[in-house]
Amino acid sequence: MYPKSILKLIEDFKSLPGVGAKTAERYALRILEKDEEEVEMFAEDLLNLKKKIRYCRICGNITEGEICDICADDSRNHAVICVVQEAKDIFALEKTGYKGVYHVLNGAISPAKGILPDHINIPSLLDRVDENVEEVILATNPTMEGETTALYLSKILKEKNTEVSRLAHGLPMGGNLDYADELTLIKAMEGRTKES
Amino acid sequence: MYPKSILKLIEDFKSLPGVGAKTAERYALRILEKDEEEVEMFAEDLLNLKKKIRYCRICGNITEGEICDICADDSRNHAVICVVQEAKDIFALEKTGYKGVYHVLNGAISPAKGILPDHINIPSLLDRVDENVEEVILATNPTMEGETTALYLSKILKEKNTEVSRLAHGLPMGGNLDYADELTLIKAMEGRTKES
Repeated sequence: MYPKSILKLIEDFKSLPGVGAKTAERYALRILEKDEEEVEMFAEDLLNLKKKIRYCRICGNITEGEICDICADDSRNHAVICVVQEAKDIFALEKTGYKGVYHVLNGAISPAKGILPDHINIPSLLDRVDENVEEVILATNPTMEGETTALYLSKILKEKNTEVSRLAHGLPMGGNLDYADELTLIKAMEGRTKES
Repeated sequence: MYPKSILKLIEDFKSLPGVGAKTAERYALRILEKDEEEVEMFAEDLLNLKKKIRYCRICGNITEGEICDICADDSRNHAVICVVQEAKDIFALEKTGYKGVYHVLNGAISPAKGILPDHINIPSLLDRVDENVEEVILATNPTMEGETTALYLSKILKEKNTEVSRLAHGLPMGGNLDYADELTLIKAMEGRTKES
């Protein structure tokens, strides 16, 4: 058996996504090999994260300031708002070269879990969408909850006469067609585009 | 781009074995979702590890006390010493049901890296091996450095008239013969046992 202080750290590592007992053990033993200074820095970075990170007053993105870098960037198109469920989705979408701004819902509507529109950042989105906004892109997850949320937002935003679009569904690039599940294939078929 | 405090923590996680940029990112974002209390505990456990862990005065195993649990256990056979390179090897060997004690070299002899017998815990091993020790089991790794170390120890321990044995080399259980590398097959052939 490992000493208690190692067992405790192994438990901490096991709380990270996809980390099992064996991996957590390797991480803890690696920590043991590090200099005291390096471990102190690690611990400090952990604490700093929780202390310094806040949510952007405008879009709900994670930031160290009052407003996130994207909302503060005047070179971006503030008339296009892309709606995502989680802040981490922004970092994925940024790789596409998208130059509009975002709105982080911080969840999705789920009647089953009792999560209603007012419980996530939908009111703040509706406040943001005025005559200056040209398009709202719905980029919620292609899951039951994400679809429900997109449907709900689509309905009320259209009532406000805002142009609403939705990320395309279909076959993921680089995969084989026969690996795609039925629902994806149905979506790919429905969303098929004409060859010109 | 992520805020600086997240980037710093991502770097910390990347220093763990087998953790790439993507995994480190997932870990850091998971930390962000945790309660402040839980993260404080994680940081404290990291610091505690370095503060509390010491090396057993007798065998060099990691421990929180002066002597490790294994050396302090009178029900074990202190006349049999199993020599390993690293403390973590002990936790692997404990699963075999071995009831002797251990000696952690904390490395292996490597002329290429300038690591000589006196640089690792070999002098303390030789001090331990007296007339009360019945057998020394060499369980160094089956690598160039581990083999060199085993050869060296075997020679000087035999000069002391101590019985010396070495863990068997051969085919790993549960694998296919054709997956084994040539060196393993040669060792398995050399070490073949008679069927009775």
